[in-house]
Amino acid sequence: MGLKNKLFLGTFVHSKALDELEYLHNAAVCVDMSGTIVAVEVECDELRARETVLPRLGWEVAEVEVVEAKEGQFFFPGFIDTHLHASQYPNIGIFGKSTLLDWLNTYTFPLEASLSDPVKARQVYTRVIRKTLSHGTTCAAYYATIDVPSTNLLTDLCLSHGQRALVGRVCMDQLSPDYYRDASADASLAATRASIAHILRADPTMSLVKPIITPRFAPACSLPLMRQLGALARETSLPIQTHISENKSEIALVKDLFPPSATGAADDSYASVYDAAGLLTDKTVLAHAVHLTEAEADLVSARRAKVSHCPCSNSAITSGAARVRWLLDKGITCGLGTDMSGGYSPSVLETARQAALVSRHVVMGANGLAPGEEREKLSVEEVLFLATRGGAEVVGLEGRVGGFEVGMEWDAQLVGLGMIGEGGEVEGEEDEGGDVDVFGWESWPDRVAKWLYNGDDRNTKKVWVKGRLVHQRK
Amino acid sequence: MGLKNKLFLGTFVHSKALDELEYLHNAAVCVDMSGTIVAVEVECDELRARETVLPRLGWEVAEVEVVEAKEGQFFFPGFIDTHLHASQYPNIGIFGKSTLLDWLNTYTFPLEASLSDPVKARQVYTRVIRKTLSHGTTCAAYYATIDVPSTNLLTDLCLSHGQRALVGRVCMDQLSPDYYRDASADASLAATRASIAHILRADPTMSLVKPIITPRFAPACSLPLMRQLGALARETSLPIQTHISENKSEIALVKDLFPPSATGAADDSYASVYDAAGLLTDKTVLAHAVHLTEAEADLVSARRAKVSHCPCSNSAITSGAARVRWLLDKGITCGLGTDMSGGYSPSVLETARQAALVSRHVVMGANGLAPGEEREKLSVEEVLFLATRGGAEVVGLEGRVGGFEVGMEWDAQLVGLGMIGEGGEVEGEEDEGGDVDVFGWESWPDRVAKWLYNGDDRNTKKVWVKGRLVHQRK
Repeated sequence: MGLKNKLFLGTFVHSKALDELEYLHNAAVCVDMSGTIVAVEVECDELRARETVLPRLGWEVAEVEVVEAKEGQFFFPGFIDTHLHASQYPNIGIFGKSTLLDWLNTYTFPLEASLSDPVKARQVYTRVIRKTLSHGTTCAAYYATIDVPSTNLLTDLCLSHGQRALVGRVCMDQLSPDYYRDASADASLAATRASIAHILRADPTMSLVKPIITPRFAPACSLPLMRQLGALARETSLPIQTHISENKSEIALVKDLFPPSATGAADDSYASVYDAAGLLTDKTVLAHAVHLTEAEADLVSARRAKVSHCPCSNSAITSGAARVRWLLDKGITCGLGTDMSGGYSPSVLETARQAALVSRHVVMGANGLAPGEEREKLSVEEVLFLATRGGAEVVGLEGRVGGFEVGMEWDAQLVGLGMIGEGGEVEGEEDEGGDVDVFGWESWPDRVAKWLYNGDDRNTKKVWVKGRLVHQRK
Repeated sequence: MGLKNKLFLGTFVHSKALDELEYLHNAAVCVDMSGTIVAVEVECDELRARETVLPRLGWEVAEVEVVEAKEGQFFFPGFIDTHLHASQYPNIGIFGKSTLLDWLNTYTFPLEASLSDPVKARQVYTRVIRKTLSHGTTCAAYYATIDVPSTNLLTDLCLSHGQRALVGRVCMDQLSPDYYRDASADASLAATRASIAHILRADPTMSLVKPIITPRFAPACSLPLMRQLGALARETSLPIQTHISENKSEIALVKDLFPPSATGAADDSYASVYDAAGLLTDKTVLAHAVHLTEAEADLVSARRAKVSHCPCSNSAITSGAARVRWLLDKGITCGLGTDMSGGYSPSVLETARQAALVSRHVVMGANGLAPGEEREKLSVEEVLFLATRGGAEVVGLEGRVGGFEVGMEWDAQLVGLGMIGEGGEVEGEEDEGGDVDVFGWESWPDRVAKWLYNGDDRNTKKVWVKGRLVHQRK
């Protein structure tokens, strides 16, 4: 993969800080054969790159692949989807008026169970990888199912398609249907170890795919299982992913199932249950965190656990409106998750858009906050930070992906918008600009805002992971 | 237009009631040269149509144009966008963290004023018509600007592109910038009459384009202007469109500007101001209605005025979450509006999606409601009703468009979804199914849900207005 050294030329846009995008125009980024960024040069056209940068790198000019962003196009870091269920992909958009617990039983468990059929698993997993790549998702934290062979297949397909991923076999040994449940805590642990072993055989250096320990969520896991998974995380130093505080009925169920007398925790909060089981680590990805109490958020912050914010899902299945600003203010690292198929969209860009909109609903009084909390609003810059740098930190890849800096790996997308001519026609092919129309007088920040609010996979022209081209539009 | 009689064959989906979609499979719909539906036959393939239906209509088989929906495709009524500002189209997605009143001054008035340039007006209006047609919008209730020539151009362009429209010259004689304001109430009225006269010359039977009296919103209109426009509506029997109760600062401003002592109204509510001026009729389209009081909603209901719900806009510029169920329960007719560019999307389908999501935010406690108001949730069927039948009634076209019944006009779109093969590939062209993946096992209601939640203009293959093909994808 990435057999040639590459020279990328044009405009590069990436996050400098939570509320700041940096625009590098007329710039050059050099990516070596391993997929690592080895030079970032501003005010550098192709000629200057050939004359000064490539020689400094010791690269033969003739052997360098040149990729140039056209006028109006820009390179942007690949998106990181910090929470999605690969196995639920065929159900996106199908949830009726359900909420979490009935949604699981009605729509979700039957579909997940059906993926023990390897033909269906190959179809679904191939599709979800291609689909998310086409939307610029260069890294995904996947839940698979309880089934080991098909979870292994998901790993293999990520590797063959070149998508960076964390792959988790789902652990669940209670409170789920007979037809879809681990036989025991021990069986769950053994199956988890088997899926981890498969990943380490397939990608020994975890250069692309990493295992992630995946207790589904507290209600579906016995205390012994959670404790064993906590011990496994300590033993292996692997990351953990699970759900927390998504829905009020779920929270009540957790209180009911895991009293302090059983867990040994100081209180009966959801976060304390995980903490008591050793599952609240600095490598833990907590999806949702909609209804955390102050004390829980403080505990999550103290443990340096991360949050995957899933606004599409939280709105769709009526879970609530997560207070992202409040989490950020507590020093908690946040990223975005499509949470398919609680979330209806495969797109992190749509998720970022909804993060902006849901933050406005928080201001408007959702979640019991007083209206007028203006600073809860997330800006264009902030939601795009969450989609890239924030996500990278959530999945433990900060400093490796999420931005364009020397030493980071080239996980990126080339974005193109539609340019409107004087006659009101879009220039170029019919779908050249997707649904984004640029009239020419817009500033760069306005163009990025237009992309956030109307962009789709048509705007993502090419996608690279670790320097390798993994998707391009025809 | 529509020079041939047409025979449409395949699956037809339309609303039977607020919460019910009807699926007509293997059906035939005959549309005559005038664009009127003259037959709807179930269990009718092409052979049967040729043998029994066409002879009954007295149509020469050889002269009938046949349009067949492919397997998995379906005909759906065209969407009705009951509220949008054609002149603001270039600004969609650009609103920062603003709210209504600063948004108007920062982004909106400068752009609207600039459309007095006829070259720019032609570019923008051509683009917004093509764009909305490509998203299946067969009828739009447009706000133009205060400028008469460019408003007339919008009318001409709707006619030449074949889009059904209500076109309103914007009336505003106070509290807006010097550079963008009618010189006086009389000048505003005269300009409005001029734009009405233009429409009646261009489309004397109002078969496609109708004038609509458009006081921008109370704060921008003097009381004499509102009264004159109310009188004009009585004189002409024309519809009216305006905004109401979008944002709390706006509401406070209205109370301040229009005390009962001035208006002669019984109270200082926003609805009463319009009512006192004669602007609250059964042909009035009120955009937003986010913060109506009980008494105001009762007054709107009593006057049989209609509401255009604009969820994308209300979320984007942080106006609030309109309580659509509550409005419907009061017997108020509701449709959907993209409200570009307060709304960020040109798509009524996206607006319907957001209507479903925002209704969930109402349940989750936005707008000061108690959480748990489950029945506030809008279903897939309900938001699609609002987008078609509801919208038709809002703009006074009930019984003419919005469904597939004999006597109605053929304003319709052909919708196609993506069919996923065994290998996880989409069948056909790359963008054949847009972003909607159908695996084959989904029910028809599930397919429609998938379209609602991930569909875009790629799914809208062809669009007809009054029997005339006005858009098709290459």
